[in-house]
Amino acid sequence: MNASLQDGERLDYITQDLSIIQRASVFAFSIDAVLLARFTYVPKTRGTIIDMCSGNGVIPLVLSTRSSVPITGVEIQPLLSDMAERSVAANQKQEQITMMEADVRTPELRTTVGEADLVTCNPPYFPTPQDTEKNTNPFFTNARHEENGTLDDIIRAASVVVKQKGKVSVVLRPERMAELFEIFRKYRLEPKRMKMIYPKHGKEANILLAEGMKDGKPGLTCLPPLTVYDEKDAYTEEFRRYYAGC
Amino acid sequence: MNASLQDGERLDYITQDLSIIQRASVFAFSIDAVLLARFTYVPKTRGTIIDMCSGNGVIPLVLSTRSSVPITGVEIQPLLSDMAERSVAANQKQEQITMMEADVRTPELRTTVGEADLVTCNPPYFPTPQDTEKNTNPFFTNARHEENGTLDDIIRAASVVVKQKGKVSVVLRPERMAELFEIFRKYRLEPKRMKMIYPKHGKEANILLAEGMKDGKPGLTCLPPLTVYDEKDAYTEEFRRYYAGC
Repeated sequence: MNASLQDGERLDYITQDLSIIQRASVFAFSIDAVLLARFTYVPKTRGTIIDMCSGNGVIPLVLSTRSSVPITGVEIQPLLSDMAERSVAANQKQEQITMMEADVRTPELRTTVGEADLVTCNPPYFPTPQDTEKNTNPFFTNARHEENGTLDDIIRAASVVVKQKGKVSVVLRPERMAELFEIFRKYRLEPKRMKMIYPKHGKEANILLAEGMKDGKPGLTCLPPLTVYDEKDAYTEEFRRYYAGC
Repeated sequence: MNASLQDGERLDYITQDLSIIQRASVFAFSIDAVLLARFTYVPKTRGTIIDMCSGNGVIPLVLSTRSSVPITGVEIQPLLSDMAERSVAANQKQEQITMMEADVRTPELRTTVGEADLVTCNPPYFPTPQDTEKNTNPFFTNARHEENGTLDDIIRAASVVVKQKGKVSVVLRPERMAELFEIFRKYRLEPKRMKMIYPKHGKEANILLAEGMKDGKPGLTCLPPLTVYDEKDAYTEEFRRYYAGC
């Protein structure tokens, strides 16, 4: 693979034939993002997809293996947006994936990024902390905390750009499930599908995958659970298959 | 066991040393109620418990094996309340369990039934249907549909009688999870613990156990999942243990 790497960058393998540019000093994609890209509904051949809080573009890259529709990745941080753009090029996905440096809180969002049949998002997991608790690395801070928009801001933005009956898929910590569902409903996104991910047998869930439909009818389906590690701390067979999209 | 049975009634085994009076023409308790009684927090030696929509009293009976505090079962239908009272007597639990025939929608609820450290509820699962879709047996209709109060009515009532920082535990179909959490929060009950029950490996969840805390801080814990049947349609070992309270 022919990737244009800058100082401090490396090319990491995601899944299938996909690779991604990452930096130790910024952040690496997590399995959460890949699981979201596997879990979500996708329009296969017609329509468009927008990925918000796109980071280094892992979700658009994985989605491109499941769908042939145009995908726009929206990322507020120039450094990450630039890395994502080069990852797209390295994977020869420029015709399908467009990276856009934008703030999802802008009132002109729908004009800027267009509208979509599916909006995906791996938002910052934690509410904005006190200054004393913040990670001093600004790239971690932005990815982990709500510096660039609260969960409410982001879901509102997703609801603005998604089409009627379109889907919004989000990965989040289960701790915030009640809050997420309330915000979903506040912006006319009805929770329709969810899946809980458990680190190990007998442990509490640590990842929530959830999908809402714009103006959908109430009625939530809770898909079979997925356990990541077995008793020997190796990936379970079911996790490997789900992650690889088998 | 010395039970006072009427025509058409039989004595069924629940779990441990407990039995319960049931009638084929009314309805039998479901495993859902027993799972709720296992899942919920209980005040062990101090405080009080109220079980709403108590039916034939299965939840108070199972809770009496986990706690020594007074338990009040509230049931609107006289026939069921009477069966429950006789079941309580048959299990020699009259000193701990009191059955009360009452409508949880009454404005005097807190005066009538008192206040509690824990409120449990196995409410009707489905919204009130059109007349044409209703089950013609009124006992099934009342237990399955919201003839005697909507989910909102019942959760509001639970919030009225539960003490500050007390718990409200509910069993419901996962389809209504988003609605339940929204109603919980509307009545200052913060979802704190939940557990999903799956009928079989690879199937969607069909039972949701959820617990809220009156004026609790946000933050939901999703406990390990439980699968009821194995590949041969026999109860799984983990289900047997959970159901039996081991």
